[in-house]
Amino acid sequence: MERIRTCVVGATGFAGVEVCRIVLGHPALELTMATDRKAAGTRLADVYPAFEGACDLVLSLPEPEAIAQNADVAFLAVPHTASLAITPQLLSLGVTVIDLSADYRLHDAAVYEQWYGTPHTSPELLGQTVYGLPELNRSGLLVLGERHEKGEAVLVAVPGCYPTATALAAIPALEAGLATGDLVISDAISGVSGAGRSANARTHYCHANESVEAYGVAHHRHTPEIEQTLTQVAGREMNVVFTPHLAPLTRGLLATVYMTAADGITANDVQDAYERRYADEALVSTLPAGHMPQTSSVAATARAQVGVALDDRRRRVIIASCAIDNLGKGAAAQAMQCANLVLGLPETQGIGVTAPLI
Amino acid sequence: MERIRTCVVGATGFAGVEVCRIVLGHPALELTMATDRKAAGTRLADVYPAFEGACDLVLSLPEPEAIAQNADVAFLAVPHTASLAITPQLLSLGVTVIDLSADYRLHDAAVYEQWYGTPHTSPELLGQTVYGLPELNRSGLLVLGERHEKGEAVLVAVPGCYPTATALAAIPALEAGLATGDLVISDAISGVSGAGRSANARTHYCHANESVEAYGVAHHRHTPEIEQTLTQVAGREMNVVFTPHLAPLTRGLLATVYMTAADGITANDVQDAYERRYADEALVSTLPAGHMPQTSSVAATARAQVGVALDDRRRRVIIASCAIDNLGKGAAAQAMQCANLVLGLPETQGIGVTAPLI
Amino acid sequence: MERIRTCVVGATGFAGVEVCRIVLGHPALELTMATDRKAAGTRLADVYPAFEGACDLVLSLPEPEAIAQNADVAFLAVPHTASLAITPQLLSLGVTVIDLSADYRLHDAAVYEQWYGTPHTSPELLGQTVYGLPELNRSGLLVLGERHEKGEAVLVAVPGCYPTATALAAIPALEAGLATGDLVISDAISGVSGAGRSANARTHYCHANESVEAYGVAHHRHTPEIEQTLTQVAGREMNVVFTPHLAPLTRGLLATVYMTAADGITANDVQDAYERRYADEALVSTLPAGHMPQTSSVAATARAQVGVALDDRRRRVIIASCAIDNLGKGAAAQAMQCANLVLGLPETQGIGVTAPLI
Amino acid sequence: MERIRTCVVGATGFAGVEVCRIVLGHPALELTMATDRKAAGTRLADVYPAFEGACDLVLSLPEPEAIAQNADVAFLAVPHTASLAITPQLLSLGVTVIDLSADYRLHDAAVYEQWYGTPHTSPELLGQTVYGLPELNRSGLLVLGERHEKGEAVLVAVPGCYPTATALAAIPALEAGLATGDLVISDAISGVSGAGRSANARTHYCHANESVEAYGVAHHRHTPEIEQTLTQVAGREMNVVFTPHLAPLTRGLLATVYMTAADGITANDVQDAYERRYADEALVSTLPAGHMPQTSSVAATARAQVGVALDDRRRRVIIASCAIDNLGKGAAAQAMQCANLVLGLPETQGIGVTAPLI
Repeated sequence: MERIRTCVVGATGFAGVEVCRIVLGHPALELTMATDRKAAGTRLADVYPAFEGACDLVLSLPEPEAIAQNADVAFLAVPHTASLAITPQLLSLGVTVIDLSADYRLHDAAVYEQWYGTPHTSPELLGQTVYGLPELNRSGLLVLGERHEKGEAVLVAVPGCYPTATALAAIPALEAGLATGDLVISDAISGVSGAGRSANARTHYCHANESVEAYGVAHHRHTPEIEQTLTQVAGREMNVVFTPHLAPLTRGLLATVYMTAADGITANDVQDAYERRYADEALVSTLPAGHMPQTSSVAATARAQVGVALDDRRRRVIIASCAIDNLGKGAAAQAMQCANLVLGLPETQGIGVTAPLI
Repeated sequence: MERIRTCVVGATGFAGVEVCRIVLGHPALELTMATDRKAAGTRLADVYPAFEGACDLVLSLPEPEAIAQNADVAFLAVPHTASLAITPQLLSLGVTVIDLSADYRLHDAAVYEQWYGTPHTSPELLGQTVYGLPELNRSGLLVLGERHEKGEAVLVAVPGCYPTATALAAIPALEAGLATGDLVISDAISGVSGAGRSANARTHYCHANESVEAYGVAHHRHTPEIEQTLTQVAGREMNVVFTPHLAPLTRGLLATVYMTAADGITANDVQDAYERRYADEALVSTLPAGHMPQTSSVAATARAQVGVALDDRRRRVIIASCAIDNLGKGAAAQAMQCANLVLGLPETQGIGVTAPLI
Repeated sequence: MERIRTCVVGATGFAGVEVCRIVLGHPALELTMATDRKAAGTRLADVYPAFEGACDLVLSLPEPEAIAQNADVAFLAVPHTASLAITPQLLSLGVTVIDLSADYRLHDAAVYEQWYGTPHTSPELLGQTVYGLPELNRSGLLVLGERHEKGEAVLVAVPGCYPTATALAAIPALEAGLATGDLVISDAISGVSGAGRSANARTHYCHANESVEAYGVAHHRHTPEIEQTLTQVAGREMNVVFTPHLAPLTRGLLATVYMTAADGITANDVQDAYERRYADEALVSTLPAGHMPQTSSVAATARAQVGVALDDRRRRVIIASCAIDNLGKGAAAQAMQCANLVLGLPETQGIGVTAPLI
Repeated sequence: MERIRTCVVGATGFAGVEVCRIVLGHPALELTMATDRKAAGTRLADVYPAFEGACDLVLSLPEPEAIAQNADVAFLAVPHTASLAITPQLLSLGVTVIDLSADYRLHDAAVYEQWYGTPHTSPELLGQTVYGLPELNRSGLLVLGERHEKGEAVLVAVPGCYPTATALAAIPALEAGLATGDLVISDAISGVSGAGRSANARTHYCHANESVEAYGVAHHRHTPEIEQTLTQVAGREMNVVFTPHLAPLTRGLLATVYMTAADGITANDVQDAYERRYADEALVSTLPAGHMPQTSSVAATARAQVGVALDDRRRRVIIASCAIDNLGKGAAAQAMQCANLVLGLPETQGIGVTAPLI
């Protein structure tokens, strides 16, 4: 079988290089092109010596026409606005786009403009984009797959890392009506790779090591994205208070979510709802009652694990904790999960059975 | 000046050895005795090579009469129930006790028995014990100091690490009436030293490294201690939902606390209340508006730093984050802060101006 | 194609579970059995929650007859002497054995007995065992493959982690005659997983974190194994001074090797010899001149990277540094590389194109 | 007693801020001035929030005349050449200089120029500077102290971190004639703070974490400094092959040193020589036979610990391993040890009894 020609745009960022790694190990894809504005002309292996002996690809400039000549599908691992600048042209050139940036995640251009402080230059695409959380929007992704098969270029907006973990922690309780009210608190902890590859005071080893801290409190840009998803799930307007923390690990993200318990529900009800919701999901597991997930269990994979508890002493609160790899299920591996669905491939192909276990 | 003879009971645990280190550097105290049931007869330096060349003390058995012969004050760095077994006798032998265990923290013996699953064998002491959070109970500690000066042996119950950080994060908002309702959510992250010196699957380097996880969800024993303090502060019965997490660092604890904002308050009101509350505290600092603390800033000290924000988009929530060292302000250094107050010494003597900064 | 039935003996140790992970992702193998003496009867996923949702296999006791009924090939990830106890019977029952223990690595039973302090109970097998360093003994492994194809059960002794890295660093210089004399110094650094899964004072997170230390100085058991290999390569009796260090990372091993430079050689000669030696190796790369490898580049793979330099100021010394994953090329992934060769599969099948790059 | 007015030049670098921290806790010194070219005008606490609530000093420009007005002693924690630019003037203005840079460490200006690639602009000072390794040159430092007491400004060149650890590991064997030949191999491992505060690809958390690597192989600038010291100690010209490694910890440095053993010596001879050599040193300890030091034992202190072994199998080699804190005994704390000697204060005043033990 001929392999699908694949380009990774923004190949030297942390999410981008993880997409490259996954494509290189994917039996149905071929990494034909990788771009980086600054490093164009040098080999990917010069930037990441891990590729030495494994991949000799030379980085290119992210020019849409060159991408269209070399690839059938493009993964965009770029900062917000960079995808706006290139996606419309890629689509019109017939390249299916799996966009890891924030540019097409929010359905409402006005909300985008409010939180990102910049106009949305292709709002007409928002209606035909699918938000790539397969456990919530698989049918939408499969519809894109049908259009792709007919030769149409389609666009997937891959969720952010915090929204993915928060959504997976909250969905079963909200869908089952176990959580009431309109407030969800998401208190999350991310590894340092979430801060990106840019070297600055905050990503310096000696700053991040042996320390934890909150950041972006009360104004992190993932907040509206989480609210959009939880509102969709709950069927009522949900408010999210979201606090991300930085902890000294490279990869991994844990979201612990607090929701008001509906009257009369028991811990068993909650456990059952989560187990049922994810019973048929290959990549999301509910842990046995009494167990909470740890991020190392899902490192370098597209997997998520969820644990749940009910604090039923006085004020009754559902506490759900979801572990993902911020670069895996939180970015590159989930992007590939979406791509597999859109490209007609087995959903989990090429994205890792299980984590390196220790 | 003759130095005050000091015994550390449970000297090889993480909190105990930190008390030893502080005593060794304290200009007014002398480490005359250190006990450990298992390692008695060997040198402290055999257990902790860091003491090689710095301290040749041989560990003893924790026998009250021997302690009373050798020390005027005893720090108990022992598990719960071990303090119950020894404290009454130490007091009757005239030894002032700074107890780092949980045994005398809860005012109500019934609550102790419910959460710790064991009878409280000296409830008569609870009324005369001071809960050693100096920023809340300094006057009580100074009264103990007066009694100690008159030759009476007194008892301080040093707070737990999570209760310390949660209380310091919540006190200003509750005292000032900025937080309403009866629910406080405390989502906290601790370094692995909080799990103690016992070697087990969870403290194995390869388990704890590169991972975060929640534990003790909805039933951690620090919950009633936090509720007791917040109820005292708020003047109404407070409920606490408390979720501790483990992160890959040795020392450090961050508590991020969520409280319902009273109507009409502004972010400035909140910032002002915190700054005013801690303006005269030597060891607790409110960070400038917009800043959140990181645990490395307070490592190996008795210091705490607090940052605060108001999420005033729709559901209005006060978010306060407090960083301490779980073994410093969360245990040994706070114990010494209490001891200084009780022994008539300068409150911050011997407990570190500032952290090793990186 | 029917997949080869595979058993992992000692499946809950760090090397064992890594073999399980690799087998689960290997297209030609099927994990039909996994054994653990203590955890038999529980699921592998109960011990390693990472398998939750990915593998429901229940652990068995390591009984040779049961293994022979369930598997064509067995990976032994057991401590020394445990392989002695089971390998002869497995072979006679027709099971090909890939042994990760030290029991069959040394050709001379007397040397084994001297360093391991226990008699070698099946010295007759030593002559027909191949030391599984494919880059040195590929032809021997392929001969085993021919015998295996004819239905004979064969035995591979997979090298230790330190011997693998030291050998790969030293082989090109010794083979090419660039290094003279009979002394090689190997100064190596390993991640904590090298100390195994047993929870003890040394593997406690708070001991291993933020610290480096030497251990086993002048008497580590990998010394005779390294000497055996370097003597084979150099064609003269080589002495090795070997110092392992522990550093705070989970996976990764770096060996920096010092060899006396032959008269007249240049840095280019050295660089050329290394590049030539590994030019056709899929899993060992020589880095460009001036570059030294880092262990993260090869994490979770069977890959090795080597960098080399010549200190030609006064005393002329070749310095070669080799990075591997102690559980990958240093154990499980190299075991699979050997198994692939013996089982007639592509040498690198199932063992990872490249590391998770960050 | 009036405290000695102290200025720290380069106060925001890692060594500089550590000097500030030590000065703030030093009973005989007062931090009257701290300089930083870029951050002048802001508070030190704005750069390092750990100082929030502990120190309100505003950073100044490093102008010699202002320094001379405000301080009796200046610690220079600056890159090489920056000390050349300021030290002569400071001395002529009467300020005693404790220089942590490399500028005055090498006795021979030509060697400086060869390794640092820049002319030495004040070679006339080299003859009157003392290399501040107190365990080797205490008498020289005390002579400076006498001159300082008479009102003369004097200059101490504080050793580099690698030279300190290597020297302390090698001195006893070389002085006692137990090591022969002219070659010493020093294989060392440093925490990331050794790479300085500059944020770049190599100090990014995600690069440094979970990895070890060699760097500067065969050409690190500490090499001639080590050779100068070992030549002084051995009384013959010594050659040093020096390989530094980077490991994922913030603070800590371990040097493992290999020396050819003299004929006939025993392991006991070596152990005895090390114990005798450091018996009267307050800050350097020889560990009991069979023990090797770990860096965490000396973190945040001026202490060093040394362990030693003899590999006497065939090629007989002395292996000595020395643990220091690269910012403590390797920089700031050793600088203060030197300052104490020069200023007539107790040698160990203000520099920490023992490390935070875990």
